[in-house]
Amino acid sequence: MPRAITAFSNPLVKQARGLRDKKNRRREGLFLAEGLRILTEAREAGVLPQLLFYSDAAHPLLHRLIDETEAQGGEAIETSADILHKISGKENPQTVLGIYRAFDTSLRQIDRNAAPLWIVAQALRDPGNIGTILRTGDAAGAGGLILVDECADPFSVEAVRASMGALFTQRIAAAPWAEFLGWLRDGEGELVGTSLETDIDYQQPTYRKPAFILVGNEQAGLPADYAAACDVVVKIPMLGRADSLNAAVAAAVMAYEVVNQFRRRGL
Amino acid sequence: MPRAITAFSNPLVKQARGLRDKKNRRREGLFLAEGLRILTEAREAGVLPQLLFYSDAAHPLLHRLIDETEAQGGEAIETSADILHKISGKENPQTVLGIYRAFDTSLRQIDRNAAPLWIVAQALRDPGNIGTILRTGDAAGAGGLILVDECADPFSVEAVRASMGALFTQRIAAAPWAEFLGWLRDGEGELVGTSLETDIDYQQPTYRKPAFILVGNEQAGLPADYAAACDVVVKIPMLGRADSLNAAVAAAVMAYEVVNQFRRRGL
Repeated sequence: MPRAITAFSNPLVKQARGLRDKKNRRREGLFLAEGLRILTEAREAGVLPQLLFYSDAAHPLLHRLIDETEAQGGEAIETSADILHKISGKENPQTVLGIYRAFDTSLRQIDRNAAPLWIVAQALRDPGNIGTILRTGDAAGAGGLILVDECADPFSVEAVRASMGALFTQRIAAAPWAEFLGWLRDGEGELVGTSLETDIDYQQPTYRKPAFILVGNEQAGLPADYAAACDVVVKIPMLGRADSLNAAVAAAVMAYEVVNQFRRRGL
Repeated sequence: MPRAITAFSNPLVKQARGLRDKKNRRREGLFLAEGLRILTEAREAGVLPQLLFYSDAAHPLLHRLIDETEAQGGEAIETSADILHKISGKENPQTVLGIYRAFDTSLRQIDRNAAPLWIVAQALRDPGNIGTILRTGDAAGAGGLILVDECADPFSVEAVRASMGALFTQRIAAAPWAEFLGWLRDGEGELVGTSLETDIDYQQPTYRKPAFILVGNEQAGLPADYAAACDVVVKIPMLGRADSLNAAVAAAVMAYEVVNQFRRRGL
């Protein structure tokens, strides 16, 4: 049975609110996700929260979330919109939020042959970009996102929100470049870099499975030695005055090119 | 000659800071843009600020901005990092920001034959999406962005920032749906809707110039009657569990498909 919490000073409220900070997420191995749509995506992917806070139990999908959370040993807590506002920090908080255990982000949990493509982001700083790439990866049939070097936290509230639930359906790994490259070369896989420093149009190569699409940092792009380690480096044509695309947009344009090639070849 | 302002209470500082609010932007017909990169994009597109605030004049590109702003009758104001922080509201403010006159956003300033494609966004709520679409439109050779119905403000700080300067190189128009449709049908142009409620793959049609790519609201997508008014409605394949892409990502995937077709056909 759900219990009710109405006090702002309740330790669970404090703990949940603390998960907006990266250092607390790291220390506790937990993260926050908000909104019935995202929590339902998680449930359908088999992931349930340890703690579920809600302020309005009218929706049948919320009933299912409560039931399944409790059945898995988690706890459902009825609370007020004010307390949800305090936890989420948003002006118009969602009526439900969950605390989830962070996933294993080691490369060894990635089965590269489980998907035709993977997205690799290097030193990506914007959590919204990370979430958007996860969402795009899911839509394009990617297996997941590999975060190389120091990236924004994929378990941040902004990344989870932008992923629209794809955080729970895509695999996520994080590794320094050398470790990633060692892992990649220890098996099949074509590493496709995107850069402005090449004349090869992104529609020119014939991509192979599994394709690893590598996008670089928002400001600096891919370091030259990272690009040199790729099997092919391609450029999305820039037909205007700007010299680059948003990183999540570049990842999407590349991912759909690879997908379209695989579709044409019946792969 | 630039003058110096060091007082937080200076009316120009107050006015600049006020432009973070939409109602002040509307009333004064002005908007803020931040950062040397974006202001230089603007200058190269022939657009100079009325007022230029800067805290560090070391960069040669800033010297050019100051000179040209003053030559055009604008004013350059040397100030402190603290005051730039106060104006921008950002923790780490850029060292330069400009106040610009808002552009005419009527449909009549759009020359549809000036570009092979245009992006049309309906009821888009996220200013970051609007800025990202402007940036993508520039890269894909679009003529500009037409905002249909009630959209986020393209002159908001978030939209200007996400556009990375494309706000100054892309045409921007805003109109209610009925006015837009009347304008569109009064000339050439294929209206290409994106929707999940169709079986036509986005790579199936042969697109014609000028193509108008229509993306709908982030949550609701395109209204059914808007989709019915399109020449063709297409779907980007969704191969995972998610049922949609981020609106700016969908616009980009569509725009590059249209561009790629035109490139193949030598258009």
